[in-house]
Amino acid sequence: MTEHLEIRPATIDDVPVIVAMLADDPLGASRESPDDLAPYREAFERIAGDPRQHLFIAERDGHPAGTFQLTIINGLSRRGTTRAQIESVRIHRGMRGTGLGSELIRWAIEAARQHGADLIQLTSDASRTDAHRFYERLGFVNSHAGFKLAL
Amino acid sequence: MTEHLEIRPATIDDVPVIVAMLADDPLGASRESPDDLAPYREAFERIAGDPRQHLFIAERDGHPAGTFQLTIINGLSRRGTTRAQIESVRIHRGMRGTGLGSELIRWAIEAARQHGADLIQLTSDASRTDAHRFYERLGFVNSHAGFKLAL
Repeated sequence: MTEHLEIRPATIDDVPVIVAMLADDPLGASRESPDDLAPYREAFERIAGDPRQHLFIAERDGHPAGTFQLTIINGLSRRGTTRAQIESVRIHRGMRGTGLGSELIRWAIEAARQHGADLIQLTSDASRTDAHRFYERLGFVNSHAGFKLAL
Repeated sequence: MTEHLEIRPATIDDVPVIVAMLADDPLGASRESPDDLAPYREAFERIAGDPRQHLFIAERDGHPAGTFQLTIINGLSRRGTTRAQIESVRIHRGMRGTGLGSELIRWAIEAARQHGADLIQLTSDASRTDAHRFYERLGFVNSHAGFKLAL
């Protein structure tokens, strides 16, 4: 039997599974609240109402395998470059180390191209050194420092 | 005479001045083409058509002083956090070192709050070490590595 990977836009019914993946992570464990889904459902509706936001879920043989979000950001700089930004990448615990991450990101790169992006960008927490090597293997350049400020 | 600083949404008529500021920069000099404004005007229309994109120009006493772009990014992670992302910050050459940068970023933080953002984020090229110290003084934490891939 060959494995079947499907990557598709997430629906409101996928929210619990996606939140579980977000939470099952060294950093996500303290940030997420998978027992209280209301704020996530509200956020899903905001994402769904924005044509430049694309939240995806990946399923392998019908089982949740991963998730990521793609945001299309138009801008003036770099001669009017359209950027695609990847946020909230997670691979399901049972699927890590199987090459699925590379498949997901390569698929995201192609989706970004189809949305007219000239540049794809993401940030990764400084502690995720394995992820940094992963993105560099896929051709990304670690050229920027990423700053955050909680409001 | 007291100085008057105005920060307002940019219009299509501001594009030449904004592009001149983007180009007058160590990195921007090789990336931008201020003599060919057509791609910038097309990009401006894409930005103007997106209610979650906000391109600002600052003027001091009627003279161009700075520019930045704010993007509102809804997402599921961090309990449905709404992020505001700052891109393409420039201070006009004649206004650098006057504290205007801090005024602009503090104003951007307030604008992000008013758009419902819980988190404000940006990336800065690794070579811009002065900018890194500037953002840290304003309370930002350099917690992430920023990756880019040209398509």
